[in-house]
Amino acid sequence: MPRRIGRRMAAKAGLPPGTLVYTGDRVQGARITIAEYDKETFTERELASLAECPLVHGRPTVTWINVSGISHVENLEKLGECFKLHPLVLEDILNIDQRPKVEDYGDYLFIVLKKIDQDPKTGEITVDQISLILGPNYVISFQEGDGGGFAPIRERLAAAKGRLRQEGADYLIYALIDLIVDHYFVVLEAFGERLEFLEDEVVKQPGPQTLQEVHRFKNDMILLRKSMWPLREVVSRLERRESPLIKESTALYFKDVFDHTIVAIDTVETYRDILSGMLDIYLSSVSNRLNEVMKVLTVIATIFMPLTFLAGLYGMNFKFMPELEWRYGYFTVLIFMVAVAILMLVYFRRRKWI
Amino acid sequence: MPRRIGRRMAAKAGLPPGTLVYTGDRVQGARITIAEYDKETFTERELASLAECPLVHGRPTVTWINVSGISHVENLEKLGECFKLHPLVLEDILNIDQRPKVEDYGDYLFIVLKKIDQDPKTGEITVDQISLILGPNYVISFQEGDGGGFAPIRERLAAAKGRLRQEGADYLIYALIDLIVDHYFVVLEAFGERLEFLEDEVVKQPGPQTLQEVHRFKNDMILLRKSMWPLREVVSRLERRESPLIKESTALYFKDVFDHTIVAIDTVETYRDILSGMLDIYLSSVSNRLNEVMKVLTVIATIFMPLTFLAGLYGMNFKFMPELEWRYGYFTVLIFMVAVAILMLVYFRRRKWI
Amino acid sequence: MPRRIGRRMAAKAGLPPGTLVYTGDRVQGARITIAEYDKETFTERELASLAECPLVHGRPTVTWINVSGISHVENLEKLGECFKLHPLVLEDILNIDQRPKVEDYGDYLFIVLKKIDQDPKTGEITVDQISLILGPNYVISFQEGDGGGFAPIRERLAAAKGRLRQEGADYLIYALIDLIVDHYFVVLEAFGERLEFLEDEVVKQPGPQTLQEVHRFKNDMILLRKSMWPLREVVSRLERRESPLIKESTALYFKDVFDHTIVAIDTVETYRDILSGMLDIYLSSVSNRLNEVMKVLTVIATIFMPLTFLAGLYGMNFKFMPELEWRYGYFTVLIFMVAVAILMLVYFRRRKWI
Amino acid sequence: MPRRIGRRMAAKAGLPPGTLVYTGDRVQGARITIAEYDKETFTERELASLAECPLVHGRPTVTWINVSGISHVENLEKLGECFKLHPLVLEDILNIDQRPKVEDYGDYLFIVLKKIDQDPKTGEITVDQISLILGPNYVISFQEGDGGGFAPIRERLAAAKGRLRQEGADYLIYALIDLIVDHYFVVLEAFGERLEFLEDEVVKQPGPQTLQEVHRFKNDMILLRKSMWPLREVVSRLERRESPLIKESTALYFKDVFDHTIVAIDTVETYRDILSGMLDIYLSSVSNRLNEVMKVLTVIATIFMPLTFLAGLYGMNFKFMPELEWRYGYFTVLIFMVAVAILMLVYFRRRKWI
Amino acid sequence: MPRRIGRRMAAKAGLPPGTLVYTGDRVQGARITIAEYDKETFTERELASLAECPLVHGRPTVTWINVSGISHVENLEKLGECFKLHPLVLEDILNIDQRPKVEDYGDYLFIVLKKIDQDPKTGEITVDQISLILGPNYVISFQEGDGGGFAPIRERLAAAKGRLRQEGADYLIYALIDLIVDHYFVVLEAFGERLEFLEDEVVKQPGPQTLQEVHRFKNDMILLRKSMWPLREVVSRLERRESPLIKESTALYFKDVFDHTIVAIDTVETYRDILSGMLDIYLSSVSNRLNEVMKVLTVIATIFMPLTFLAGLYGMNFKFMPELEWRYGYFTVLIFMVAVAILMLVYFRRRKWI
Repeated sequence: MPRRIGRRMAAKAGLPPGTLVYTGDRVQGARITIAEYDKETFTERELASLAECPLVHGRPTVTWINVSGISHVENLEKLGECFKLHPLVLEDILNIDQRPKVEDYGDYLFIVLKKIDQDPKTGEITVDQISLILGPNYVISFQEGDGGGFAPIRERLAAAKGRLRQEGADYLIYALIDLIVDHYFVVLEAFGERLEFLEDEVVKQPGPQTLQEVHRFKNDMILLRKSMWPLREVVSRLERRESPLIKESTALYFKDVFDHTIVAIDTVETYRDILSGMLDIYLSSVSNRLNEVMKVLTVIATIFMPLTFLAGLYGMNFKFMPELEWRYGYFTVLIFMVAVAILMLVYFRRRKWI
Repeated sequence: MPRRIGRRMAAKAGLPPGTLVYTGDRVQGARITIAEYDKETFTERELASLAECPLVHGRPTVTWINVSGISHVENLEKLGECFKLHPLVLEDILNIDQRPKVEDYGDYLFIVLKKIDQDPKTGEITVDQISLILGPNYVISFQEGDGGGFAPIRERLAAAKGRLRQEGADYLIYALIDLIVDHYFVVLEAFGERLEFLEDEVVKQPGPQTLQEVHRFKNDMILLRKSMWPLREVVSRLERRESPLIKESTALYFKDVFDHTIVAIDTVETYRDILSGMLDIYLSSVSNRLNEVMKVLTVIATIFMPLTFLAGLYGMNFKFMPELEWRYGYFTVLIFMVAVAILMLVYFRRRKWI
Repeated sequence: MPRRIGRRMAAKAGLPPGTLVYTGDRVQGARITIAEYDKETFTERELASLAECPLVHGRPTVTWINVSGISHVENLEKLGECFKLHPLVLEDILNIDQRPKVEDYGDYLFIVLKKIDQDPKTGEITVDQISLILGPNYVISFQEGDGGGFAPIRERLAAAKGRLRQEGADYLIYALIDLIVDHYFVVLEAFGERLEFLEDEVVKQPGPQTLQEVHRFKNDMILLRKSMWPLREVVSRLERRESPLIKESTALYFKDVFDHTIVAIDTVETYRDILSGMLDIYLSSVSNRLNEVMKVLTVIATIFMPLTFLAGLYGMNFKFMPELEWRYGYFTVLIFMVAVAILMLVYFRRRKWI
Repeated sequence: MPRRIGRRMAAKAGLPPGTLVYTGDRVQGARITIAEYDKETFTERELASLAECPLVHGRPTVTWINVSGISHVENLEKLGECFKLHPLVLEDILNIDQRPKVEDYGDYLFIVLKKIDQDPKTGEITVDQISLILGPNYVISFQEGDGGGFAPIRERLAAAKGRLRQEGADYLIYALIDLIVDHYFVVLEAFGERLEFLEDEVVKQPGPQTLQEVHRFKNDMILLRKSMWPLREVVSRLERRESPLIKESTALYFKDVFDHTIVAIDTVETYRDILSGMLDIYLSSVSNRLNEVMKVLTVIATIFMPLTFLAGLYGMNFKFMPELEWRYGYFTVLIFMVAVAILMLVYFRRRKWI
Repeated sequence: MPRRIGRRMAAKAGLPPGTLVYTGDRVQGARITIAEYDKETFTERELASLAECPLVHGRPTVTWINVSGISHVENLEKLGECFKLHPLVLEDILNIDQRPKVEDYGDYLFIVLKKIDQDPKTGEITVDQISLILGPNYVISFQEGDGGGFAPIRERLAAAKGRLRQEGADYLIYALIDLIVDHYFVVLEAFGERLEFLEDEVVKQPGPQTLQEVHRFKNDMILLRKSMWPLREVVSRLERRESPLIKESTALYFKDVFDHTIVAIDTVETYRDILSGMLDIYLSSVSNRLNEVMKVLTVIATIFMPLTFLAGLYGMNFKFMPELEWRYGYFTVLIFMVAVAILMLVYFRRRKWI
């Protein structure tokens, strides 16, 4: 997950506002999909670039323009012209370091969101900035990626499933945002599994790499949380219907999405709390193992040091050492040594060291 | 206590809203109990499934429909039709990852709560999602579990104890919520006992499993707290009578429940603070024991190392070592060794190591 | 100080509201004291139980009814009847797990407070729940304990000291609350002394019991704080004169009490911060002592291990060891050993280990 | 810096409000200075006690009465009578455990502040409670100390420097508060130097006394902060001109003082954060030194234990030990021992232990 | 980055407000640049000092006066006279310990900001206080430094790039503030790189200097954050158009700057969280290395102590020790010793110590 946000913003320092500079890394071919639908009809066409304005204003159908691959600035400029978008909106669409936000420009709402996904192969988290424009009868969506993420909506539209075809552009926006929020749960589930696995590992066989894993997990939570709090704000503002572009019946659906974001945020906060606890466990298990090591050392040293001393004592070469002459001196010393060892062992057993 | 919330929500990603999917694990036979009562009369019947609408609107009695086992989607659909419930309400009833919340749909209030219980055998905490619908003269309650939890209310209704039979549907809702909140105290009491036990253990004989216990306790508190803060919000909104469905005389009772939730939240926060302190105690007691172990090792080593050296010294095989020839050489050395040992012991006693 | 709040509340789970159950532990004889006064007169009488209503409504005097020992439910029921108290008020008086709160029932205010005291013998903190009812010309106070705590007020009333006899029932309530808040300072002073003592101990001779003391202190602060924040809220609401039962001239006095509660809360927060710092000191002093122990061990081992090896070397029984035959071999080795020891000591002195 | 606040407040428990009890420690001779000024004139006189009221109300000049040494209760009572001060105001002036606050009594404002100073000799921080009363054309200031702290204001008045002589009583209050706030910066500068010194010490040669210094510093910051937050509140309320006694032109100056208090609070918070970081450094440097000590021990033990064993092996007295008879047995063993030692040293060098 | 703020403010204690004292360190030659422009024309001239007022009020062009090197108080006084600036404004411009703030003086807005920069050679962070005054058709900017930082704006003005020449003074203020905020991103990028480098180092080869680096980084974040929160407040107030000097069309641009400051603050908070996690990693890696050292010591001691004891045993000089006489006694003991050593090694391998 990217977190060096400064770099990309930094590249723009000193440029006049409204300069269209794409701040992302990936460059790919643009793809523009235009869908038009009402209760009865649904048509879809795909273009590589825009020659003319895709919308005849005033038509009763809903038009959904999806732009995948925003690095092609010409398309954006064309769209900005057609829909009279403010230069700052165009600039924000290209700047992929935006926070999730909603802005009311009167004729249209401008919404920025982050779509997170998990690479099925590497398990890595990817973040896609999604910009949405909601007009009275049109929706424009911009994506960095290839737009495959909106396939379920397209299918529901084509199949006329649910209420999607019966409602207006605001319901389409709701469906898109709902999909994005649901993706957070897919990723959170993967994190949940990882968390359970880590909890086991911390208790059973913690090693230095366990800690690094916990640390990386924590950083992921920090970043996830960073995109979720403003998301919550966005949905809350849509639900409160600050713009007349959102119908009252749709606001109820945004309320539902809002509840979902709260559940997701709660989950992230819970994961963070649990991870903090795991660090304590880890540190104390390191201490415990040190204790254990030290006990082994102490037990060994405490048993063998007195015995070695005794052996050394009778290894002295004094002329006059009466014990050395005794018939059973050696055996007496051996027995004494065993007694000392047993005594020590009993003492350690009592202190629960062994 | 479950905490992997993401998984269940994740299963729904991409589905149109209003799709009725039960997200819980347990499947059991549904049981529908319909009670009707006013001051004079009380009737109760039990059904396995719904064939017709259970309520003739406009009757002066209060009707309480309790649905246990929400996995049977047909009953839910039937009820939704009879009472004109919003599709999102039906969806939320089935989605057991809801946060406690209250929603005003004009004709009725939709309330989601979490009922916690403790398994008397295993001591494990279980969480049941309770959905309540309050209409002008009816209450519908949905439970995942077998509905045994509402038995005290049913008994009070049957026995005409208290004010329950004399008041309307809003008072029944109050009684149900009060019961749910009281259950938190039952569970908190069990936690309180466990906490006292743990505090003793941490001070007297802490081991690695003590820490894991503290950790698990802490996680339980995190989860408990997560369901209690929104509960507080729910009760607060009911108390403020945002809906005309709540009578003024009943609001006073909700105020009382509100005070109870505050006490419960305070208790959880206090437990959390105390648990944090216990971690400190645990870590420092581990350090203290390490200190103790090291002192034993140091005392032994410091006494026996010089003695062993002395013994080794007179075990050397030099031709010319005058002490070895002395008559009382051996005894002198023995006395010197005892003196050294005593000196060391005195030194350690002074430093309070032994 | 009690903190297992759940247990007592738990005993009531499932009972209908308004059921009068005393949740406290102590049972003692009830004592009812009824004082009536105005500027000129003051009468006081004491009863064991209530036969008739103690107040003829509409009299110009102020009546103060103090009930000590609330476990005698009959008296409470009688009073509830006389003064038309709401069943929930009676229930709350008996439930000693209330949070400090103020409730406006129109005709009267219901106030719950916690009076803390310190047992002069054991030094233990005790908590008494005080319930106060303020009517237009009467005050009713309920205590778990024996009511000795209000003696200073009774004396001031009898002696006509200060403004107490010249003002109404709201000023009496002020005087009672002021007394309760002042008691917090008495207890905080004792804690302040204990804190200074502990700070000394942590620095000079910390042991495991020091840590437990700090831990217990911290828990006491958690509990004290828990009762002080809602107390602040209570006094703030009285000061803002949300009820007409509080006269404007008296509100100024409540402002003064409010300032005192703020000072007390500040003090508790300061103590908590200082205690947190003490834990750090403790842990690091444990580490320091471990360091010291380890240095002693290392110094001893580092000096005697090479010497013992040397001694062992010349204790070997090889046939051909030329040094053994030398005239001054023994003395040379002795001098070499002393040199090694001195070298080591110099090295350790340099590293500041000894 | 004093922090046992409870003791002094505790002494007043049970006394009726308005009882004038001085809660401070220091007793000294009172000194009353009365200055009267307008644009043209400035007169000043000094009294030991008050015989008559110092102000003829309605005069166009500004009168500033400064009372140093508030333990002489008679003066206070006389002033209270002259200026019709509320008994609670007089009580608060004597109670030196007040929090900074401002209270509007209609005719006059009552302001309590803390003036901090640093003893130039011992470096200790002292706290003086300053009480200010602002009337339409008079200011009364009360101090525990000897009043030397207001000398710069007195000089500016006498010298007619700045706007002081041209403005009213509210500007004089501003000048006094500005002086008090500036004193915080003098003390913060001293703390800043101490902080830099400590940071050096923690990194270069940390000892147990370093930690105590950090701890004491932290406690000082806790106490400083405690008096600064309410100070900020006081200045903010004066700036918002809640009382008509503050002229609009003066409010701008209070805005300036407000900015200064914010800077001071920011500085204290920054110091606190930096001190927390220093504790981490300290603890880890203790751990690092322990590591170092242990490495020395391990290196020594690991080199000499095998060698001593070898020496012991050939010190055994078995009849048949062929090596002992060899011509170069002794030298072979010696060479083997050196090889073992070198091997060990290489191993440790590789692990970067030496 | 400077953090001893108290010192400079302290120098002013006791002085009357409005005294012009420069609190910064650097003194350099002043340079005054006056630019006048409208859509068609652009003129610029540079002065060393001000002889006359640079602005003829009422001209339709926008005038931008930039003062570099504010230590020359005369220029400031002259400007204050020409533009009727409040004495407190002049004082604040010279006092370089201001927090970022905006103040509305009716005719003009006074804005204080901090411009941070990174020295390209030493990598050190420098902070420049920028004061801005926005009048109806003029902007005055004051800088400590040499004013090179505003070069991009000057170039855009000269080249008539973007909307700068077509808009009024408020748009110029926006352009200046935007530039200052963009500089934060330049510095944050450098910090981001340092953070990644540090994360690597902590995991791979942490040493005491790593910790100091983390500590210094943390302190930098504390200071950065301290200047960013008030910056956010400033921009937010400009965006809300509290003054009529900001046109509605410009407010939209301030909204954009506001979003950028939020992103920057988020980044700083994220860095702080990540740094906290790094400290945990560091401490635990120190513990882990201690564990490793102790294991080596214990393994060596546990293997050689019993062996040395055995060797010592058969080095005793008792007359009667039957084993010594045995033919294969020596070899038996040798084999036994090897067996013991192997046993120990197997035991340690099992416990995963080696």
